[in-house]
This record gives sequence, C-alpha cells and structure tokens, in this order.
Amino acid sequence: MLQSALKFTHALLYQSVEDGDIVIDATVGNGNDTLLLADIVGPEGTVIGFDIQRDAISATQNRLNEADLNQRVQLIEAGHELVDSFSIKDSSIAAAVYNLGYLPKGDKSIITSPDTTIESLSKVLPLLKPGGLILIMVYYGHEGGAEEKEAVLSFAQSLPQKSYDVLQYAFINQKNSPPFLLAIEKK
Amino acid sequence: MLQSALKFTHALLYQSVEDGDIVIDATVGNGNDTLLLADIVGPEGTVIGFDIQRDAISATQNRLNEADLNQRVQLIEAGHELVDSFSIKDSSIAAAVYNLGYLPKGDKSIITSPDTTIESLSKVLPLLKPGGLILIMVYYGHEGGAEEKEAVLSFAQSLPQKSYDVLQYAFINQKNSPPFLLAIEKK
Repeated sequence: MLQSALKFTHALLYQSVEDGDIVIDATVGNGNDTLLLADIVGPEGTVIGFDIQRDAISATQNRLNEADLNQRVQLIEAGHELVDSFSIKDSSIAAAVYNLGYLPKGDKSIITSPDTTIESLSKVLPLLKPGGLILIMVYYGHEGGAEEKEAVLSFAQSLPQKSYDVLQYAFINQKNSPPFLLAIEKK
Repeated sequence: MLQSALKFTHALLYQSVEDGDIVIDATVGNGNDTLLLADIVGPEGTVIGFDIQRDAISATQNRLNEADLNQRVQLIEAGHELVDSFSIKDSSIAAAVYNLGYLPKGDKSIITSPDTTIESLSKVLPLLKPGGLILIMVYYGHEGGAEEKEAVLSFAQSLPQKSYDVLQYAFINQKNSPPFLLAIEKK
C-alpha cells in the first residue's frame, strides 16, 4: 500500500513530466533512471545525463542504444556541478533526478560529495520551470553519507517557502539506513 | 504537484479502504474525516468515531444525519484510548485516523495528550488487519504539541520493521509548524 521511496519517486515523475520535456539525470549511474526518463519525455523530449565515471556513461549508452532511446539522451562525462556549462535555459527543466552515494556494484570509494551536490542543486534551481521538480534519493549508509545527508537536508530546509515546496518522504522505523526522498517543487 | 499532507492522507484512504470495511476515526472533531470515511466504507461499512467533546459529537451527528450517512457511523463520546472497550475484533480494521492537537474553532485548551495518544495507538495496532493503516496528522504548533510530536515519533520509530512500515510525509521548509503525516502500515 505505502509506496517505497523509489516507487513514489517514479510515480511523481510519471505525473509531472510530459512529452517533449527537458529533464536532467544528475547521476546516471547504472542508467535505470535515464531509461525511465527517456521513456517519459517521449521522442520530442530530452534527457541530459551526467556521470563522472566513464563505465557508467558507456554502460548507459549501450542500454539506450539497445532500447533505441539514444536520440533523446545527451550523456555527459562530467560531474553534475558543471550543469551550468551546457547552455540549459532558465525555467526550462521539468525535473532533475539525483541519486546520492556510490554507483551500485561499482567502486564504492567514488561517492557524491556534499560540496558538489549543493553546488549542483543551487545551479539547477533556476533551471526549473514552475511546477518543476528536483527529486533526490538520499542514500547515506556509506562512509561520508551522513555528512552529505545533513548538508542536503539543511540546504533543502532553508529554501524559501514562497518559492519552493520541500517534501521529505521517509520510512523511519527501518534499520540499515534506507534511502529517503527529498522532493523540491518550484512554485 | 506535490500533495499536501492532508490530500495525501485522503488519497491513501481512498486507495486502502474498501466497501464494507470497518474503520476508526479516533478524533472526530469537526467531522470532516468522519464523513469522508463514511462515504468510503459504503452502506455495508462501519465507522467508529471517538471524541471527548460533546459539541464535536453532536455537530458531527448532525452532519451525518443531513448527509444520510448516520447508519454507517457509531459515534462515541469518549477518549480514543478507550478503543479496547468496544469489542472491536483483532485484525478487523482497515484504517484508523488521528488528528492530534485541538479542535479547530473549538476550545484550544482541550488537546490530545502524549499518554493517551500512545495508549490508543498501542491498542489499535492489534486491531489492524494486514495492509491496514494508521494515519496520524501531527499538528504540533500549539502549547504541548512539541512533546506529543516527539512522543508519537519515538513510538512510531520503534515499531518493528518486520511487522510495520512507518512513513513520515512532511514538508520541511515551512514556518508555522505545518502538520505532517505519519502512516503506519501493518504487514
């Protein structure tokens, strides 16, 4: 009945992203969200995906090619804090998705970091169109995860409520630090 | 796009409660939830509603009579911590709804209290059927509200994850202590 944070995130994407929209996958990783987003934006839409790991980019590119979705996706081998280097217009983005932590089945020493995550979020906020969403899956069980969690929560809590709604969707009786969702909606 | 805690609560009720179900409105108050629940359970269902304030009970009874829903609802002028005094069977309840705090437009000195709220929740847990939900709207801006919020959060966090999922749905960048939802689902 109650949806997991991941399923709830996907439901929000299906409800908010429309055919032809531009969206950002800040952390491509294994490409699961990239493929989902490419499906949702449709043939006229665009997904801009970032990852610092070449393996992630190439594996995702292969999956996109196999699914014949590669025309809709621009993959960039760079950190998402460089999002302002790619001429994305203000108020043009329907959604941006972040998965914090490390790449599942990848090198667990390569993790997102508080500084670059906050820098990236700060740069994406003006890119959102009204009603646009930033969806952050906060994994924090790994070393360094707690600090990033606190930094992102603090950042999100400080956003002015006249401009943004910030929702935390979290299962609070689970061991093993399950990921929770932070959803930021631009008004 | 993002639903308020109240709208999300109603959506969960519409999804989880079926025709003929038995549900509890632990804090009838102005009767808004009572009417909603009476509508959802249908003509074969039952709503059992508690309130310690006679004014709340009689005002709600009038609204139910006007809506011709009174046959589905049993109103009890008593605190919801007495829920075990009414022969409700274990594993029989589809949902129980709590609104913590005071009665809107009523006497603000009459508030729910941590002790009776926790006692009531403890007694309702075994009454839930598998998949059943306890939905708690936590208002905490009033005097005494912070203590109750902490007590309820602590209770909810301690529920064993093998038996319950506990979701917190909260807007975290708003001033004036907006209510948040705690949803407890029995597995």
